Amino acid sequence: MTESSTNGRVSPKAAAATLAALIFDRDGLIPAVAQQHDSGETLMLAWMNRESVAETLKTGRVCYWSRSRQKLWRKGESSGHVQRLVELRVDCDGDALLLLVDQTGPACHTGTRSCFARAPRGDALADILKPMEAPASGETR
Amino acid sequence: MTESSTNGRVSPKAAAATLAALIFDRDGLIPAVAQQHDSGETLMLAWMNRESVAETLKTGRVCYWSRSRQKLWRKGESSGHVQRLVELRVDCDGDALLLLVDQTGPACHTGTRSCFARAPRGDALADILKPMEAPASGETR
Repeated sequence: MTESSTNGRVSPKAAAATLAALIFDRDGLIPAVAQQHDSGETLMLAWMNRESVAETLKTGRVCYWSRSRQKLWRKGESSGHVQRLVELRVDCDGDALLLLVDQTGPACHTGTRSCFARAPRGDALADILKPMEAPASGETR
Repeated sequence: MTESSTNGRVSPKAAAATLAALIFDRDGLIPAVAQQHDSGETLMLAWMNRESVAETLKTGRVCYWSRSRQKLWRKGESSGHVQRLVELRVDCDGDALLLLVDQTGPACHTGTRSCFARAPRGDALADILKPMEAPASGETR
């Protein structure tokens, strides 16, 4: 994983160059994978629009687009479970993002560190991660 | 990361339980993040439909849906850069997948290990990963 401890904020020119490389879908969105920068845990997949990418690169704190609420979703603004951006990476086609982050507490609104908390076990789909804490009443997607 | 070395194939009942938990989008697709199971490298983001998820769970080799070619895309079938499934995980909303895999060679058709090979540097978006080998003529997305 990255050993960088710098803040993921970038210059306005770098932000413009990054945004110019992105392809947003017909809803104006791009999928973004959040990964804990040091442990490598894949935390969640969420969606960003142009405005949320720009804000994230400007502030160094991850901001998504909530498809359910149709508004900017500043991760952790109600729960405190913020994601500090370490580095934003762009894939070969420009249609997916990888966010290397420093996640405070659980990434998932259910209280688990990662949203990817279920996997096949035996003949069932099982919960494989224990919650770090009770589900966050304030955390919404 | 996982230390499992088992094949990611699951029983028909577990496959059915997993498929029942998934929410596919209006195009019948779900985004899937592939992560190298031991190193934690995030390799790529691609898309799966119901059939490709079922095949992946049955065979233990990752099969996506190619949006550009509109057909099943058995990763590595032409390039040899296959992804052996170690474990498939489902997120809290059932609308994203994490595939822990064992990737042979580069995941990306450009020859880099990961498709997430660009990041802001200075005032530009820079290539940050060197190709493992020349771009694979046979690898398509």
